[in-house]
Amino acid sequence: LIEDDLIAQLRQAFPRFRHGLGIGDDAAIVNAPGSLVLTTDMMVEDLDFTAAIPPEYIIEKAVSSNLSDIAAMGGIPMAFLVSLGLPENWRIHFGRMVASLVAVSRRYAVELIGGDLSGAEKLIVSVTAIGRLAVANHPLLRSGAHPGDRIFLSRPIGAAAAGLGLLQSGWSIDASGEVTAPVERSWNYAERELAASMILRHVAPAAEVELAPRLAALPSVTSCIDISDGLSTDLHHLCQASGVGARIEWERVPLFPDLDRLSGQLGINYVEAALNGGEEYSLLFTAAAREAEMSATLGRPVYAIGRITEDREIMLERGGVELPLPSAGFDHFRT
Amino acid sequence: LIEDDLIAQLRQAFPRFRHGLGIGDDAAIVNAPGSLVLTTDMMVEDLDFTAAIPPEYIIEKAVSSNLSDIAAMGGIPMAFLVSLGLPENWRIHFGRMVASLVAVSRRYAVELIGGDLSGAEKLIVSVTAIGRLAVANHPLLRSGAHPGDRIFLSRPIGAAAAGLGLLQSGWSIDASGEVTAPVERSWNYAERELAASMILRHVAPAAEVELAPRLAALPSVTSCIDISDGLSTDLHHLCQASGVGARIEWERVPLFPDLDRLSGQLGINYVEAALNGGEEYSLLFTAAAREAEMSATLGRPVYAIGRITEDREIMLERGGVELPLPSAGFDHFRT
Repeated sequence: LIEDDLIAQLRQAFPRFRHGLGIGDDAAIVNAPGSLVLTTDMMVEDLDFTAAIPPEYIIEKAVSSNLSDIAAMGGIPMAFLVSLGLPENWRIHFGRMVASLVAVSRRYAVELIGGDLSGAEKLIVSVTAIGRLAVANHPLLRSGAHPGDRIFLSRPIGAAAAGLGLLQSGWSIDASGEVTAPVERSWNYAERELAASMILRHVAPAAEVELAPRLAALPSVTSCIDISDGLSTDLHHLCQASGVGARIEWERVPLFPDLDRLSGQLGINYVEAALNGGEEYSLLFTAAAREAEMSATLGRPVYAIGRITEDREIMLERGGVELPLPSAGFDHFRT
Repeated sequence: LIEDDLIAQLRQAFPRFRHGLGIGDDAAIVNAPGSLVLTTDMMVEDLDFTAAIPPEYIIEKAVSSNLSDIAAMGGIPMAFLVSLGLPENWRIHFGRMVASLVAVSRRYAVELIGGDLSGAEKLIVSVTAIGRLAVANHPLLRSGAHPGDRIFLSRPIGAAAAGLGLLQSGWSIDASGEVTAPVERSWNYAERELAASMILRHVAPAAEVELAPRLAALPSVTSCIDISDGLSTDLHHLCQASGVGARIEWERVPLFPDLDRLSGQLGINYVEAALNGGEEYSLLFTAAAREAEMSATLGRPVYAIGRITEDREIMLERGGVELPLPSAGFDHFRT
């Protein structure tokens, strides 16, 4: 059977297991330390990615987005399962996908413990990730934000959506990370550099797996979510779960370096990219602490962008004007 | 966002949680008892089912097939996650899918603890199930069969593939379980009854979740797999994992009642259905025990169909002739 051959390739790539049994029985075994954190995320060709993206990036991103969810719960990722719906035309890339699974499992120190292979008309990558809580019995929830808490971002945003926009307007990237610009006009060095780094941010985002367990250990941190749908939408999610509102100061939102300065030349709406761009995987968290304190405690910069309020409105202050910030991020069902 | 509305429907249907947090944070929490059993399985429209199958059955079967894998490992199912790739034309059935998730979670006493919703061109149902081992540190593996062990089936087989064949030849079933025969000819009562029960076995198979934990507690049971790809293929899987062979006696293979007698009239090749039909979810296990002993111990019939051999050949004895039994079950990549 073709399926058995594909599974044999996977088993060869993953010969050793710390947490479980190895691939190939009816199910996987995970030696659980107390509470497990579980999440699942499905990506579908032409909706979440196109055939123009090298398969390595598709696999890596599917895993990263799940590990980001584990991290956002205060979890330390341990293992994952991956189901592939593999159309005929993608099957030649199976070896590259397996290599990518090996690479991403090393990068994050997580094990592939199982999965499923199926035919499909479009490529489907469905990942389930498993972690353990960094602090026993203390998940980082969306629902803990209190009025007065500061709202933090873990890193500058806007690049993921901008990178997607560039790919849609003729830029491309190959499996080695080489970015090619559209030929209609010439681009200067700064534009090319920025475009390349933003496209990479889109195709190969990093999950904040180091930071999140440290946030979970800080009593001042009250809630956390990862930005997968966009700052506006995920802030709405967090505030709704916590029964609070928020006031964001636009001038404090950390933008990807040079994004505001060069976005016009690259045809990018950077305000839209920062406020509503999805797949950032920056952590959005709240804490009863100032930016300087929090950055010093963590030994790395984090960015306070506003405050939690009691009134349940989500507001954006920009240039002295305060306006409601609607939930306008990524909707998987927008047509 | 449409996605948020759909998630709200799910949260309303699953208001209470024993094992975890409830739907709606970045990830789910499962309080783990030691070792967890995990499995995942993806079903795709037009490959694993068609739009002619009522959505209730599609959802229920996707969950059952995962719980069957948990059971086949000697696990007791606890919870599951479900990801749906939901095309426009299926979205009107979302309420029925949610109702079906509620029904199946009650039927098996498992909780829905998370998932993902996405658009898609074809319906995709990806389930991950979580269980705990019935006997601590003692999973039922594929790899434990010894020469001389008897090979058992937990129930009669052949109906799932036969039911699929009937659906493909003009029979249909509605959400209430009502089966309609094709009008080209008239069917007698026995034919209609058999057809209806086989179609139901195909669309609504039951996972052996009661039996498997009891098998795990018996020292005589040496290996176990569930028949998802077909008796021939899954027997190959088990023997390969155990480094052994097998000899099956056709006359001992338990057939779904009346299947052999009426299959001709219904246009079914019952030998093919029994040997190579997938999605049976009968357990195939090996034990150092006789059929009568094993059935008495379990208080229900199980069926010894042959013996494990040392020589690594998979043979079928039928009418006094012994021939190799090739792996000819379901291949998800057969074209």
